[in-house]
Amino acid sequence: MIRIAVDAMGGDYAPAVVIEGLTAALYDFPEYELTIVGHQGKISLYLEKFGIADHPRIKLVHAEETVEMHEPATMALRGKRNSSITMCAKLLRDKKVDAVFSAGHTGAAVAASTVLVRTLEGIQRPGIATIMPGMYGKYILMDSGANPDCEPINLVQFALMGEAYAEFFFDMKEPRIGLLSVGEEDSKGNELTKEAFKMLSSMPINFVGNVEGNTIFENITEVVICDGFVGNILLKGCEGLAKSVMYWMKGVMTKNPVRMTGAMLARNAFKDLKSFADAEDIGGAPLLGINGIVIIAHGSSSPRAVRNGIKVAGEFVKFGINDKIINRVKETGALASPSELDTAEKKN
Amino acid sequence: MIRIAVDAMGGDYAPAVVIEGLTAALYDFPEYELTIVGHQGKISLYLEKFGIADHPRIKLVHAEETVEMHEPATMALRGKRNSSITMCAKLLRDKKVDAVFSAGHTGAAVAASTVLVRTLEGIQRPGIATIMPGMYGKYILMDSGANPDCEPINLVQFALMGEAYAEFFFDMKEPRIGLLSVGEEDSKGNELTKEAFKMLSSMPINFVGNVEGNTIFENITEVVICDGFVGNILLKGCEGLAKSVMYWMKGVMTKNPVRMTGAMLARNAFKDLKSFADAEDIGGAPLLGINGIVIIAHGSSSPRAVRNGIKVAGEFVKFGINDKIINRVKETGALASPSELDTAEKKN
Repeated sequence: MIRIAVDAMGGDYAPAVVIEGLTAALYDFPEYELTIVGHQGKISLYLEKFGIADHPRIKLVHAEETVEMHEPATMALRGKRNSSITMCAKLLRDKKVDAVFSAGHTGAAVAASTVLVRTLEGIQRPGIATIMPGMYGKYILMDSGANPDCEPINLVQFALMGEAYAEFFFDMKEPRIGLLSVGEEDSKGNELTKEAFKMLSSMPINFVGNVEGNTIFENITEVVICDGFVGNILLKGCEGLAKSVMYWMKGVMTKNPVRMTGAMLARNAFKDLKSFADAEDIGGAPLLGINGIVIIAHGSSSPRAVRNGIKVAGEFVKFGINDKIINRVKETGALASPSELDTAEKKN
Repeated sequence: MIRIAVDAMGGDYAPAVVIEGLTAALYDFPEYELTIVGHQGKISLYLEKFGIADHPRIKLVHAEETVEMHEPATMALRGKRNSSITMCAKLLRDKKVDAVFSAGHTGAAVAASTVLVRTLEGIQRPGIATIMPGMYGKYILMDSGANPDCEPINLVQFALMGEAYAEFFFDMKEPRIGLLSVGEEDSKGNELTKEAFKMLSSMPINFVGNVEGNTIFENITEVVICDGFVGNILLKGCEGLAKSVMYWMKGVMTKNPVRMTGAMLARNAFKDLKSFADAEDIGGAPLLGINGIVIIAHGSSSPRAVRNGIKVAGEFVKFGINDKIINRVKETGALASPSELDTAEKKN
């Protein structure tokens, strides 16, 4: 059995959408045991509705509170110690589950996981790895939002974690790793990336050097490494532009009857087009570097996204990604020094 | 007469495309006097071809060298002191021209302008302000690439320079200014933006707080402020995604005869769609904060983009944007301290 805790209260349409999605996962993956963490009074209705209240592979854990989207991330640790995400992290820490899935407050999930579950041996800070749509296929962007301020060692460790994810996701050896910067040449970048470039160059990984904001879409690497501030803005920027393109498209396509006829004939093409940037297929992004599996999903996740995110959580457990990360960090010697780990802990 | 120096050697298709574009500008703007800076042996052919060799509003300045795209930016100051961009900067420094237009090496243009022409009184570092396509209209992104590493005072000064640009571009008073970050709340951001947030909050500008990578496309502010590393990656990321969308679109639209018929009927809609993200209308981005007007264009600029970039250069001169920036910096007291200016100079 693969044991997964699901934060039933996390997400814009929680708990309804989460429970609908986890019901699908429950039936699709008979080797999964799901622990639903949430306010019992608020979720029981949906458990009844979807007919899983007494399901043998369902467990319930009551959580009195929820970290709301507008609250600071630290609320998960200080103000609301009985929140659903905090309870999920505790279950993971206590080895009651193998993985956690949450579509709730990203910062809260990162904070609770880092402080309660802790990072993997030698890893200073965890990072979020997001699958992005490139022109000819997908690529992995890491960190896409966990760490607004990074040190060079963090980027180096993201490279190793991204490598492990790419081996799993693309089923390949020695995936290509690029460092997101403002020019291809070694000399281009900010202080952080220039230092990280040097460190990455001397490592036994398939490091191809700097990659740029435009070229990453040409699938020149499987993994793109950056700090969480840049990654988050790039990720959300693409979301904003994609939404704008769809809005403009609607405008130009409905301008006159001829165009409308054309749009109607090509309507399936537009559906296909949307599928290129469909994040729901993957359903969630792993927070890598934590001593357990944590999958973070978009707040607006649909039931299908929740189902797929839970699926991915289980796959990570089976793949044993964390053992691979620990081994690679040891092999390459890219460990955070004890003093760095110390500082990281104090920061949290 | 408005006197503009044009870097004839700058750009992927220089000098041909640049001279074609400046010929159009020459005829369209009778109050412009253009100084063509480039290798005479390489440009004379094109001056003949476009029939402007003896035009009364054309001057020629010979430049023996060109800073190539793959060379470091400092080449403009150290290795190739007779390069076209360096000569352009010297003309601006010596008040022989009022503005410079270049589609060449961005870093070289920034370095040459900063060191030779110097920054405006009280301004520590110049920044590139790029017009971006939002869902309902344009917005200004600054800095989009001049400064990979910034201090909070730089972001504050970008806000004032962006404000002046927005007043010119949108013809409005008190444009809204947003600070690009990873969450709307004051507490969200990296160390740089959190400090800049505090400074911006206390200033007499229309500061609306943090804005995010996705919401900036919803035109919630006229100006979006960030460091040049983040800005460059966002800008190029959008370029990469837009190119991907067009590529995917072609694929899905040509999949079968019905879709192809639809696409043919709606073909003008696709043309309209492209126009939303058309950078050639503006033709170039100003490097603001320099004691003179410097317009930097994309390396792949077409003749139309060059023509429009030269047009914009002249409009900036007429608008007197630099006087406005100097006044606003004085009024708001957001001056770089003498020690900061000192450091900035040494860095260059």
